[in-house]
Amino acid sequence: MGTPVSTSQVTTGPIEGSTKRYLEIDHLRIPQRRVNLTNGEYLDLYDTSGPYTDATAVIDVEAGLAPTRDSWSKPDAVGGASTQLAWARAGLITDEMRFIAAREGVDPELVRSEVAIGRAVIPANHRHPECEPMIIGKAFAVKVNANIGNSAVTSSIAEEVEKMVWATRWGADTIMDLSTGKDIHQTREWIMRNSPVPVGTVPIYQALEKVNGDPTRLTWELYRDTVIEQAEQGVDYMTVHAGVLLRYVPLTARRVTGIVSRGGSIMAAWCLAHHEESFLYTHFDELCEIFARYDITFSLGDGLRPGSIADANDEAQFAELRTLGELTKIAKSHGVQVMIEGPGHVPMHKIAENVRLEEELCEEAPFYTLGPLATDIAPAYDHITSAIGAAMIAQAGTAMLCYVTPKEHLGLPNRDDVKVGVITYKIAAHSADLAKGHPGAQDRDNALSKARFEFRWTDQFNLALDPDTAREYHDETMPAEPAKTAHFCSMCGPKFCSMRISADVRTYAEENNLVTAEDIDRKIAQEMAAKSQEFIDAGNRVYLPLDAVKA
Amino acid sequence: MGTPVSTSQVTTGPIEGSTKRYLEIDHLRIPQRRVNLTNGEYLDLYDTSGPYTDATAVIDVEAGLAPTRDSWSKPDAVGGASTQLAWARAGLITDEMRFIAAREGVDPELVRSEVAIGRAVIPANHRHPECEPMIIGKAFAVKVNANIGNSAVTSSIAEEVEKMVWATRWGADTIMDLSTGKDIHQTREWIMRNSPVPVGTVPIYQALEKVNGDPTRLTWELYRDTVIEQAEQGVDYMTVHAGVLLRYVPLTARRVTGIVSRGGSIMAAWCLAHHEESFLYTHFDELCEIFARYDITFSLGDGLRPGSIADANDEAQFAELRTLGELTKIAKSHGVQVMIEGPGHVPMHKIAENVRLEEELCEEAPFYTLGPLATDIAPAYDHITSAIGAAMIAQAGTAMLCYVTPKEHLGLPNRDDVKVGVITYKIAAHSADLAKGHPGAQDRDNALSKARFEFRWTDQFNLALDPDTAREYHDETMPAEPAKTAHFCSMCGPKFCSMRISADVRTYAEENNLVTAEDIDRKIAQEMAAKSQEFIDAGNRVYLPLDAVKA
Repeated sequence: MGTPVSTSQVTTGPIEGSTKRYLEIDHLRIPQRRVNLTNGEYLDLYDTSGPYTDATAVIDVEAGLAPTRDSWSKPDAVGGASTQLAWARAGLITDEMRFIAAREGVDPELVRSEVAIGRAVIPANHRHPECEPMIIGKAFAVKVNANIGNSAVTSSIAEEVEKMVWATRWGADTIMDLSTGKDIHQTREWIMRNSPVPVGTVPIYQALEKVNGDPTRLTWELYRDTVIEQAEQGVDYMTVHAGVLLRYVPLTARRVTGIVSRGGSIMAAWCLAHHEESFLYTHFDELCEIFARYDITFSLGDGLRPGSIADANDEAQFAELRTLGELTKIAKSHGVQVMIEGPGHVPMHKIAENVRLEEELCEEAPFYTLGPLATDIAPAYDHITSAIGAAMIAQAGTAMLCYVTPKEHLGLPNRDDVKVGVITYKIAAHSADLAKGHPGAQDRDNALSKARFEFRWTDQFNLALDPDTAREYHDETMPAEPAKTAHFCSMCGPKFCSMRISADVRTYAEENNLVTAEDIDRKIAQEMAAKSQEFIDAGNRVYLPLDAVKA
Repeated sequence: MGTPVSTSQVTTGPIEGSTKRYLEIDHLRIPQRRVNLTNGEYLDLYDTSGPYTDATAVIDVEAGLAPTRDSWSKPDAVGGASTQLAWARAGLITDEMRFIAAREGVDPELVRSEVAIGRAVIPANHRHPECEPMIIGKAFAVKVNANIGNSAVTSSIAEEVEKMVWATRWGADTIMDLSTGKDIHQTREWIMRNSPVPVGTVPIYQALEKVNGDPTRLTWELYRDTVIEQAEQGVDYMTVHAGVLLRYVPLTARRVTGIVSRGGSIMAAWCLAHHEESFLYTHFDELCEIFARYDITFSLGDGLRPGSIADANDEAQFAELRTLGELTKIAKSHGVQVMIEGPGHVPMHKIAENVRLEEELCEEAPFYTLGPLATDIAPAYDHITSAIGAAMIAQAGTAMLCYVTPKEHLGLPNRDDVKVGVITYKIAAHSADLAKGHPGAQDRDNALSKARFEFRWTDQFNLALDPDTAREYHDETMPAEPAKTAHFCSMCGPKFCSMRISADVRTYAEENNLVTAEDIDRKIAQEMAAKSQEFIDAGNRVYLPLDAVKA
C-alpha cells in the first residue's frame, strides 16, 4: 500500500459513555458496546464499529485490521462450494455462525437453519478475514447498509476510508463501495483491509470505467475479470443486475422516470445496442461458480426499480422480480448465497405487496431495499421520506435497509450526511425490530425512557443512537453542567414539571396500595361515602359510575 | 399594541419559484401558491402562508392582518350555538365552508356534511377574523400543526411571531401557542392578530402561571376566566384535558414514564391534592356553553398519553379515551366542534389500534396525534422517529398531525427547528395523502419526478417542499449555474447517466412501436427467427420462453 490515508484521518475512540467489551467463546471474541449508566447499571449493545471504538486497540490503517478469520476453522468444500450455504445445508455450524449467534443472542442452530434454507445470508468472502461476521435475514435484527464511494467529480481515498469507519461507528452493518471515479481499485483495497463489516460493490461500475464510460463496449470477459479482481480483494457481496432482460427494457418507456438504477441502465443500454440478451444473464452460471469459490453473496439488483411514486409496482419492476426468482434458484443450486434488492420509490399502500411478491417469487431470500421513499416531493429530506418506507418495509419482512442520505438526488454525501443517513436508518431498523417483537429490542427503549423519567440526562444521552447531538441540543438551552442532573428541563422550567408530578403519583399509589383498577375502584368507593356531601357542595357533577373504568 | 415586534422581524416575500394567486369566488379570495415551471407549465398548491408570501401585499405586524372574515355573512345562532357544526346540521353552507371547498378542490356539500356529522371540524373563532378557514377531517388533506411559544427559560415575543410566520410559510396548517413564560397574553395577542391560520392553545398553561406554578391552587373560576380571556382574543381551538379523571391517575403509577402530558399532570396533581374530580370534567357543560358562543373547537387532550414505547396502548391511555368519547357526545350536544388528541410514543404494530378505538369511542371525531414516535432511542432525531409513526397513523385515518422537532425531549425549538419540524411533517402528511389516494395529491410528485427525469433542476427545486435547501445541497457539489440545466448530475458525472439512457430507451420504444408487453414479445419473436443462430454462437443461453413476461 501507498500512503494516501494516514491513521490520524480516521475517527477512533469509544462513543461517549460507552466502552468496548468482548464476549469470549473459545477462540471467538464477539464485540459489544457497553453503555455504562450513572445508577450503576449497564446495557450491552450490538456493535458494528470494529476495533476503532476500542480504547485499548492499536489502529494502523496502513497495516489494516487483523485478519482474524484466517485462524478460524474452514470446512472443506461441499459439492464444489466453499460457502456458508453449502456448509449449513451439510449440517455444519461454522465459526462464523457461532460468532453471529452470540452477537444476535440466538441459538447457533437457528443461524444454521436460516442460512441452509436461504432465508438468511452471511456475506463473508474468504479473502476478507478482517470482517466480523454478521447475518442478514428476517429472523434476525434488521440491518443497515451505508453507501460510500467517490465519483468522477468528488472525493479522495482518505475521505472514503473515514466514511467507512464513521458509518460503522454509528451502526452501519455493511458498507457498499460505489466508487466510479479514479483509483477505484486502490480505494477499495484501503476500504477492504480496514473494514470490520462486510463490503459490497457493483462490479459493473468498475467495468464501465475500464471502457471509458461507454456501456456498449462492455463484454462478459471484461466483466468477469473485474469480478475476479474484486473477489480477490475480498468483496463480500456484489450487486448483479442480471434480471434486466432485453424484453423488459421497453416496458420502462412510458414510465415517468424510466430506468433510474445506474447498473440497470448500463445493462439496458448494452442490450439495446447489441440487441442481445444481457451477458449477466447468459453467463450467470459462470458467475455462480466464481462466487461459490470465494463465498461471495449475490445481491441481485433491481435494475428496473421505480424511481418515482408513479412508477411503483409496475409491470417492468415485477417482471424483473420474477427473473430474480429464477436466478435465485440457479445461484442456490450452485451453493451460492443470495439476497434480493428492492425499491426505491413506493407509496405506503403499495409497500407490503413488494415484500409479499419477493418472498413468493424468490423463496424468501433476504430482501434488501433502498428506502423506499414514500413520496417524491422532498429532495434534501429523502433520508426522512425513505425512513418512513424503510421502517414499514422492514416491519413487513425486509432484512436489510440501504440508507438514503439528505443528499439523495442532489449530490454525493459528505461525512455529516453519512452519519445522518446511518442514524436515520438505525431508527427505521430499530422501529421495525420493535414492531416485530425482536427479542431484547425494547430493552434499549426501556432503559432510555427510564433514564428520561428519572432525569438521568447523561444516561439518556449515552443510550441514544447519537449521544453527541442529543447532548449538544440539550446544552443549547440548558448549558450549565448542573442541568445534567437537574430534575426539570427547559420545556417546563424549574417551577413545574410533569415528570416530577408523575413521581408524586407513584408515591401516592404506593402509599395507598393502589395497583390495579379494582384497587382504585375500591378506594374511591370507600372515600365516596365520606366525601359525597363535600363533592355535592363543591361541584355540579359527581363521579362516573364506578365500573366505567372497567368498561 | 406596543412595539415588541416590528415588521422587519418577520419573513416576507414569495417562496423561491412561486407566486401567490387567488381563486375568486364572489367575495371570497382563496389563496394558492403557483409554482411556475421553466417549460411553461405550472402547478397550483394549497397555500397556508397568508399574505406574507404575496409580493403585492403590504405587511404591517403592528396593524395586524386584515380582518377579512368580519365582512362575511354570519348566520344566526342555532339552538344557542353560533358554530359551524350547528350551521352545518341546519343545512347551511357558510362562507367558511365555501372557502374550504375551493381550497381543497371538493364540493361544498362534502364540507358541510362532514362537519355536520362531526367527522371534520373548522376551527374558526368569530374573534379571529384574520384567519383563512381550513378543515380538519379524514376526508380532506391531512393537516399539520406546529407548536410554538416561549417558556420561563427562553425566547421573546418577536421570535414567537416570526416562528408563526415561518411555520406557516413552510406549510403549517395550524399553530399552537404553548407559551408558559412571561407576557403570555401579549405574546398571544401578537400571534392572533398576525396569524392567517387557526391558533390553538392549552388554557391551563396560562392559568397555572396565574397561580405561580402551583397546580393545587387552580380553581374552576380562574380557569374559566382564562378561557374567556383567550376566547375574546380569538383562539380557534383549545386543548382541554377533561378526560384525566381522579380514578385514572393511579393507573399510571407503574408506567415506565408516568404522565408526560403537561396538562395531564397538572390536572392529576390537582385531583390528587384535592381528592376531587377534575374541575374540567365537572364543569364541562359550562365550558361547552362558552365554546358554543365563540365557535371554539375542543381539542380533547390525551393527558394520559404514553411517553414511552413501554406504556403504549395501556389501560390508563384507553380509559381516558373512553371518557373523551363521552365528552365528545356532550360537546356535540351543545353544537360545539370536537377533535381528539392522540399519542405520543407507540411502536408501529400498535398504531392502527389507536385509530380504530378512537373512531369507535369518539364517533369518528377528527383524530389529532403527536407523532407518534416509533421508538424512544433517538433523542435529537425525534422528528424522524415520529414522522414514521405520523405517516402511518395518518394513513390509518388521523386528520391532523402535531409536529415534533429535533429538539423534542431536549429543549425548545428555534426557528430552524420549526422549519425542519414542519417540512418533516408535511412529508408524513403528504405520504399519507398519497396512500389514501387523496385526489390530486400525486400531481406534485409527478410534476417533480418529471422535472427530475428531464433534468429541469430549477423546477425540481421549486416543486420541492423546501426549494432553498434542495438548491443548497445541489450547489455544494455542482455550484456552477450551467449545472442547473446540465443533463447529468454529480452522482454519475457527465460521461454516463442513467436518466439519459432512459431517454434513449424511450426513443427506441417509440421507433419500434413497442408499448405493451405483447408488442415486445411480438418483436422479439420476429427477430429471434433471424437472430437465433447468432445467439447460439454468441452465448450459452437463449431467451426465456416468450410468455415469461406475462406470467
